[in-house]
Amino acid sequence: MSQLSTWVQIPNNSDFTIYNLPFGIFQNKRLSPRAGMAIGDKIVDLSVLHQEGFFAELSQLPTDIFVRASLNDLIALGKPVTRKIREKVQELLLADNESLREHQCRGKAMVNRKEAKMLMPVQIGDYTDFYSSIEHATNVGSMFRDPENALLPNWKHLPVGYHGRASSIIPSGVPIHRPKGQYKDPHMEAPEFGPSRRLDFELELAFVTGKSTKMGDSISTSDAEDHIFGFVLFNDWSARDIQAWEYVPLGPFLGKNFASSISPWIVTLEALEPFRLSGPKQDPQVLPYLACKKDHSFDLNLEVYIQPEGKSESRVCISNFKHMYWNIAQQLAHHTVNGCNINVGDLYASGTISGKTPDSFGSMLELAWKGTKPLDLGEGVFRKFIEDGDTVIMRGFAQKDQIRVGFGEVNTKVLPTK
Amino acid sequence: MSQLSTWVQIPNNSDFTIYNLPFGIFQNKRLSPRAGMAIGDKIVDLSVLHQEGFFAELSQLPTDIFVRASLNDLIALGKPVTRKIREKVQELLLADNESLREHQCRGKAMVNRKEAKMLMPVQIGDYTDFYSSIEHATNVGSMFRDPENALLPNWKHLPVGYHGRASSIIPSGVPIHRPKGQYKDPHMEAPEFGPSRRLDFELELAFVTGKSTKMGDSISTSDAEDHIFGFVLFNDWSARDIQAWEYVPLGPFLGKNFASSISPWIVTLEALEPFRLSGPKQDPQVLPYLACKKDHSFDLNLEVYIQPEGKSESRVCISNFKHMYWNIAQQLAHHTVNGCNINVGDLYASGTISGKTPDSFGSMLELAWKGTKPLDLGEGVFRKFIEDGDTVIMRGFAQKDQIRVGFGEVNTKVLPTK
Repeated sequence: MSQLSTWVQIPNNSDFTIYNLPFGIFQNKRLSPRAGMAIGDKIVDLSVLHQEGFFAELSQLPTDIFVRASLNDLIALGKPVTRKIREKVQELLLADNESLREHQCRGKAMVNRKEAKMLMPVQIGDYTDFYSSIEHATNVGSMFRDPENALLPNWKHLPVGYHGRASSIIPSGVPIHRPKGQYKDPHMEAPEFGPSRRLDFELELAFVTGKSTKMGDSISTSDAEDHIFGFVLFNDWSARDIQAWEYVPLGPFLGKNFASSISPWIVTLEALEPFRLSGPKQDPQVLPYLACKKDHSFDLNLEVYIQPEGKSESRVCISNFKHMYWNIAQQLAHHTVNGCNINVGDLYASGTISGKTPDSFGSMLELAWKGTKPLDLGEGVFRKFIEDGDTVIMRGFAQKDQIRVGFGEVNTKVLPTK
Repeated sequence: MSQLSTWVQIPNNSDFTIYNLPFGIFQNKRLSPRAGMAIGDKIVDLSVLHQEGFFAELSQLPTDIFVRASLNDLIALGKPVTRKIREKVQELLLADNESLREHQCRGKAMVNRKEAKMLMPVQIGDYTDFYSSIEHATNVGSMFRDPENALLPNWKHLPVGYHGRASSIIPSGVPIHRPKGQYKDPHMEAPEFGPSRRLDFELELAFVTGKSTKMGDSISTSDAEDHIFGFVLFNDWSARDIQAWEYVPLGPFLGKNFASSISPWIVTLEALEPFRLSGPKQDPQVLPYLACKKDHSFDLNLEVYIQPEGKSESRVCISNFKHMYWNIAQQLAHHTVNGCNINVGDLYASGTISGKTPDSFGSMLELAWKGTKPLDLGEGVFRKFIEDGDTVIMRGFAQKDQIRVGFGEVNTKVLPTK
């Protein structure tokens, strides 16, 4: 990719460069919820550009398409449309392009990000959580089952996944309450009830589908990316004590469904193209419907920080999306191979993204190894799990030469039980 | 309840008596999707009654509330409103009430059920499946784990549940395709891929919530029924071979999410009031948040029929909702005790409703005991699981003296793999 420069001032290490241009829904004191695109410290108000005729080439674009409360209808117009919108904005922001830079609408079109509130980018119909990191599955299997047979027999044959709760997915900035529930630790005679004592985050990435299917239809690994619009960071909040007691035999339920948090900007697949790479070698060979003809992994740096109340933030995890054993094309092909239909705006989380080294584990459960190795956050603060008042922040970005594309962050404060 | 009679002709053993009056969404050649109420062989077109001013007492009713494609907005107006609508229709249909009977709009207001197509009654946000029949859990535990310890340790302490797929829930009358997927029977060295060889139904009942909550809030068992609008029959289609291979450790996924079928009429809690009774005694005592002050079980007869292609239907199961160990108030209290928020239109299925006797088991897995006792359907037809061309029909009704209230049916034909 040739180097691009823009007339918008981009702070150093900004996630929102001219190469990125993610889609989101924002509002501020003056503006109702609407679609925007992040660039530096600004948001491009797409409705203003549309009003002024900058998208005139896209004749089928409804007048109010950018002033709806979610991106679903926009995304549903299809990749040829959303790609052209992003390319048009990129062209308008180029350093030598005067058409927006010198236009009377420029002030109105470029909104300050600081003054905007970010909302859920899509209305999520169904949400699925996978379990696709071999390091995470091995760590959890070692802790709770058998270190010698940490991976279950099905794990290398299919991308294990389960359905999660869509209603409790919230954007960055919305605090959560510590959940209450039943737990029964091994030493207890009977289950007890109370606030969770082992609240945890899970570092994940999630993709959003942009093209629906009908019941009975399947998506091949080759076609899968046609159905994927883009990615967000995903914090799959987990109450380990509640989960451990409830999850056999039908899977996680109240240990997960109290909240999941996402970063509000959807980074498109197009923006991540420079960071594509091949994933880990899969052995044993997968069944033909899971085989891939091209690379579907991405080199994305991921970090988790904890900020205890009144203290500074401390980085507790450095991981990378490229570690994932199962890729997004395999996940979507598997999800639909039985004819399960998908909709625009559905969300698919990766599962906890752990790497090989202890500082790359994507959850407190693994980082502090079941509470046996408390993390030193500095300033005399140690953590086995997340405490009330803590803010958990996840960040993600990709970098290659001059090109940087990032997700911003998902930032969530934990409040006491309500 | 005093005996009521109506001027509408009600066929013998009709589920849709003057005591029932369930809500649904229908359309026909002439009419766009709209809200109706079933009575005998007719549907009351609620939009006509509204137009003619029959709901004038309900001043807050939006003009177009009955001509929307789902009942969500109507239900969201709250029980005081929906209850009054149902009571008003009941009053209008009474034998001695002339106001609709002799009104010029009567022909337009009373639509033939035979000529109507029933659609999904609600747009489902999230769907949860419980596992609340002790007989079903014991049967499955005996078959796949240990007959001596068939129930898992958590089972009697909490209503086990998990999240399912909302996108693939379809109304009665829509056929499904046999799902494909991975399976690995014990004798296989590696997993294989193909059409499921063990397609099954699960006889369930599902409730629809009619009042939402905010994240962090919980619903007590005493308040639970305020949030429950009504019930439908629910066929939780299951591919046993796919499910068995995939479900450890995170629960069912592709073995379930290809389809679930519901009956299209939502029978209100009010209509089921005469059939309320106390459920099975729970021992050990449940935690305080699951304790109930009143009865939340219902005496509802449930039946399953199989109709092989070109043959007559044969009844394979007679069960009853009263067998359920965990009731709806406990299910909803448990679901929200961690602060999980719920929305209007969410669906909560009971789990397979099996009774104590072998003819009351609610799935082929149990009825034919893992394929070891094929069912004789007559005419020389035997079944271990469901075959292509079979239609599975579930029916449900309650009867007490002269009062009969029923669900109609959920009727689904299985087509070959697509």
